[in-house]
Amino acid sequence: MLPVAADGQKVARVTETLVRALGRGHVLIDPDVVASYTADWTGRWQGQAALVARPGSTAEVVSVVQACRAAGMALVPQGGNTGLVGGSVPAGRAEGGDGNTPPVIVSLVRLRRLDPVDRAAAQVTAGAGVTLSALQHHVAASGYGLTFGVDLAARDSATVGGMVATNAGGIHFIRYGGMRQQVAGLELVLADGQVVERLQGLAKDNTGYDLLGLITGSEGTLAIVTAARLRLVPSQPFRVTALIGLSDTAAAVELMAALRREVAGLEAAELFYQEGLDLVCQYGGLVSPLAGPRGAYLLVECAGGDDGVTDQLAQCLAAAGLEDDTAVATEAAGRQGLWAFRERHTEAVNSVGVPHKLDISLPLGALAAFVPAVHDAVAAVSSEAKVVLWGHAGDGNIHVNVMGPAPDDNAVDDAVLQLVAAMQGSISAEHGIGRAKIRWLHLTRSPADIGAMRAIKDALDPSGVFNPGVMLPPI
Amino acid sequence: MLPVAADGQKVARVTETLVRALGRGHVLIDPDVVASYTADWTGRWQGQAALVARPGSTAEVVSVVQACRAAGMALVPQGGNTGLVGGSVPAGRAEGGDGNTPPVIVSLVRLRRLDPVDRAAAQVTAGAGVTLSALQHHVAASGYGLTFGVDLAARDSATVGGMVATNAGGIHFIRYGGMRQQVAGLELVLADGQVVERLQGLAKDNTGYDLLGLITGSEGTLAIVTAARLRLVPSQPFRVTALIGLSDTAAAVELMAALRREVAGLEAAELFYQEGLDLVCQYGGLVSPLAGPRGAYLLVECAGGDDGVTDQLAQCLAAAGLEDDTAVATEAAGRQGLWAFRERHTEAVNSVGVPHKLDISLPLGALAAFVPAVHDAVAAVSSEAKVVLWGHAGDGNIHVNVMGPAPDDNAVDDAVLQLVAAMQGSISAEHGIGRAKIRWLHLTRSPADIGAMRAIKDALDPSGVFNPGVMLPPI
Repeated sequence: MLPVAADGQKVARVTETLVRALGRGHVLIDPDVVASYTADWTGRWQGQAALVARPGSTAEVVSVVQACRAAGMALVPQGGNTGLVGGSVPAGRAEGGDGNTPPVIVSLVRLRRLDPVDRAAAQVTAGAGVTLSALQHHVAASGYGLTFGVDLAARDSATVGGMVATNAGGIHFIRYGGMRQQVAGLELVLADGQVVERLQGLAKDNTGYDLLGLITGSEGTLAIVTAARLRLVPSQPFRVTALIGLSDTAAAVELMAALRREVAGLEAAELFYQEGLDLVCQYGGLVSPLAGPRGAYLLVECAGGDDGVTDQLAQCLAAAGLEDDTAVATEAAGRQGLWAFRERHTEAVNSVGVPHKLDISLPLGALAAFVPAVHDAVAAVSSEAKVVLWGHAGDGNIHVNVMGPAPDDNAVDDAVLQLVAAMQGSISAEHGIGRAKIRWLHLTRSPADIGAMRAIKDALDPSGVFNPGVMLPPI
Repeated sequence: MLPVAADGQKVARVTETLVRALGRGHVLIDPDVVASYTADWTGRWQGQAALVARPGSTAEVVSVVQACRAAGMALVPQGGNTGLVGGSVPAGRAEGGDGNTPPVIVSLVRLRRLDPVDRAAAQVTAGAGVTLSALQHHVAASGYGLTFGVDLAARDSATVGGMVATNAGGIHFIRYGGMRQQVAGLELVLADGQVVERLQGLAKDNTGYDLLGLITGSEGTLAIVTAARLRLVPSQPFRVTALIGLSDTAAAVELMAALRREVAGLEAAELFYQEGLDLVCQYGGLVSPLAGPRGAYLLVECAGGDDGVTDQLAQCLAAAGLEDDTAVATEAAGRQGLWAFRERHTEAVNSVGVPHKLDISLPLGALAAFVPAVHDAVAAVSSEAKVVLWGHAGDGNIHVNVMGPAPDDNAVDDAVLQLVAAMQGSISAEHGIGRAKIRWLHLTRSPADIGAMRAIKDALDPSGVFNPGVMLPPI
C-alpha cells in the first residue's frame, strides 16, 4: 500500500507517470478540455475527472491501469460516449478508488487497429476506438460481400469498444442479434493490469467459462476492452420495405410470429402507433400512404440475394389478409420514404418537449396487454402526460416516451417500470443500467441475482477501480 | 460450522435429511445402484459417490444443496450422462467439500417440466431432465412450424440441463449456434441454495451481467440448472444434401466461405477425407458415388421453405466448377445414403480399435495448414499411428481420431494439442474440459485467463461444493 497522498499530489504523480508512458499530448488536464469528456451527449450526466488519458496501444492501457491502481484512483473507460444511461462518464462526486479523488477517464478512441478482413472466417479484428461507420466502410471495401450485423444511428461516433461494453443492439437485432452474438474474440485489460488476448476468432470453443460473453455488456465495470474480433454476415443486395396497418398490437404480434417463421430474410420489424405517426406527419410535413386511423403499424424490412424475399413477404401478408393494408417499396427512395415514418419519431417527439424515455422489453406474449396498460398506468400518475410508443417489435423492445411531466419527476418512470416488472419485462432492453437505472434494478433482479452480479464484480475487480457507481447499487 | 462427524455418520445424517425431503425412493444408497451413476458411458471415467439424490422439483434441488452444504459434502450434477470428458461423474477419489467424503450425485432427470410452446415468442420452457428427443417431439406436436436449433446423436439420453451445462453444439451449429445461442432464460440453484428464476424469455435484456451465458457451458461448477427457456427456430420443410469431392482442404475452406455467403439455408457442412471414407465403405459395404481418390470431401445440407435452396446450392457449386464432383439428393432415402458416409465414421473407426479422440477447433484460415501438419505431428511421436479426421467444417471443428497408440499413451494427445495451440486453435471445441482436459488447459488459456476463471468460480461457489475437480486445475 502506498501512503495516501494529498489529493493534488497524488493526481500530479499519476499525471507525471502517464505523461512518461503516453506522451504529454495524450494526458489531458486542462479543465476545459477535461470537461468535454465528463458530460454525456444527452447533457443529463455531468461528472468530475482528475484527468483524461488517451492511450494509443494496449500496452499504454496497461500503464494507465497500473498507474491508477498504484495511486488508488478509479478509471472510467470511455468510447464514443454515445450511451444513454451515464455509463461512460464519471459521477458528479468522487466514487470508488480511495473514495476521494475523482477518477481518470480512459478514452479508448486512439485504439484504431483495423486488420484485413478474414475472408475464410468472415471475421475482422478492430481496435476499441474504431467507430462503427469506419468498421462498416472497411468491411465493404474488402469486396468480399460481407457486412457487420449490428447497425445503429450513432454509427459515426459509437466505437467498437463501447458497443461491446454495452452489448449494443440496434435495428437488425431480430436477424443478427446484438454485439454479444458478433463477438468472436476480445482483447482485454483486467483490473490487475494483466492482458487477456483472445483474438483468434474461433467459431466453436468450449474451453472454460464464457469470459467473452460476460465482459460484453458489463459496461466497463469488469475489464477494459482494447480490441474485438467480430463476426461478419453476408451483405444482402436486395431489400424490400413494407409499411403495414393493423387493427391492434395483438394483430402485429401475430403477424410478427408468421413473418419470423416464413420470411427468412426478415431484418427489421418496427412497431409504432397512430399518435406517433400523426406527430411525425405533422412535424415533418409527411403524408401516410395508408388511410388512418389504425390500431398499430409495423414497418418491416426483408433482405436477401434476390427479389424472392418480396414474394415471401407478399405471400405472408396475403395469408394474413393484409395486401390492401400495406405500402411496399423496393427502390432506395421509396424505402427511405417509408422508413421516415419510423425514424423521425425521435425528433418529432423532441419537438414537443423533453420526453421521459424508457427503453423496456416484454415477453412477446405480453406485448398486446402492455400497450393499453402503460397508457392507463401513466394516466393514473399524471393527467396531462402524453404517451408515445415505438420500438423493435420482434424483440419485444418498446421505447416508452412520455411527454408532459417535468424531467426530474420520477413518478412516471416509476409507474412504467413497475408495470414492466409486473408483466415480467426488462427495465433495460438495450441501453444498459449505467448510472441512470440502478435505482430500479431491484424491480427485475432478485437479491440472489444482484448478489451473483456483485460477487462477479468483486471477483474480477476486487478493488473496485473500474467504473465505480455504474451498474451495481452501492453496498 | 458443524463439527466434522465421522464419514459414515455424516453420510447417514445427510441420507436421512434427503429421505425426508425427497422420499425414500429417490435417495439411492445401494452400491450397485449408485455404481450405475458413477461411471460415464465411455467407461473411461469411474468415480465414487456417497449416494445419488433424484430431486423431483426445484425446491427439492434446494433441499439437496442445503443438506450437502450443511454437511460439507460436494455435489456432482448429472443429466443424461452422455458427456465425453468426465464432467458428470465424480472423481475416483473424494474431492472438494471436506476433501474426504465422496460427493452426492444430483441426478436431475426427474425435472421433466415441459410447458406449452409459446407461439408469439417462439420459445418453450423445459425442465433440466427433459431429453432432447422429448423436447423435439413436444415442439413438433405443437403444430406451429417450429423446431429446436440444436440436434445431436445422443438425443434420446442427453438432457436439457446437461446440454445447457456443456453448451452442446451438434450438427446444425453453423446455422443456429450452440446451446448458449438458444438459451433465452434459466432457472438456477446457486451454491448457497438461493434460486435465480429467469424464465420470462426476453429477446433483449441488458440488465446487468450475462449470468445466463456464463452458466451455460460452466459444466456444473457454478450453479445447478433446473429449467431452461429455449428459443425455437422455423422448421424447414425442404432439404437438399450434397456430397462434394474437392482437391484439398484449402478448396473446401474456400467453398465453405462461398456457401456461407450465398446459400442462406446452409445447415450443415461436414468435412472428411479419403482414408475415413475408405474405412466407412469397407466397414459398411458402401460405395461412394464419387470416383476417388479426392483430397477432401464436404457433405453439405441446406434447408428452406422450398426448392429454392437447391438452386442456390447448384449456382454456388457451378461457380466453383464443381458440378461434376457432386452427388445430390433431395429425397429422404437418398439424403440418408449420403449422410451415411459421414455418420458411420465413428463406428468404422471404432471397429479398428480404441482411438484417441480429440475434439479441437481452428481458425478457419488455419484449417488447410493444420491437416498435413497434424499427420506429421502424430507420425513424429508414433510411427504406427493412423490418423482419421472429420468434423464440422463451417465451425473449424475437427475430430482428430488416432488409432494405434495404447489408450493411456498421452504422447499423441500432447502432440496434437500442442500443434492446435501453436496454430491458435481450441483444445475443446464442443466437448468441454471436464476432468479429461484440465491438464491441457494451460495450452490455450493464459495464467490471466485461468485466474479470471478461478475468480469467477470462487465468487459463485466459494466453498467449492459444485463439481469439484471439473474444469479448473487444482490450486
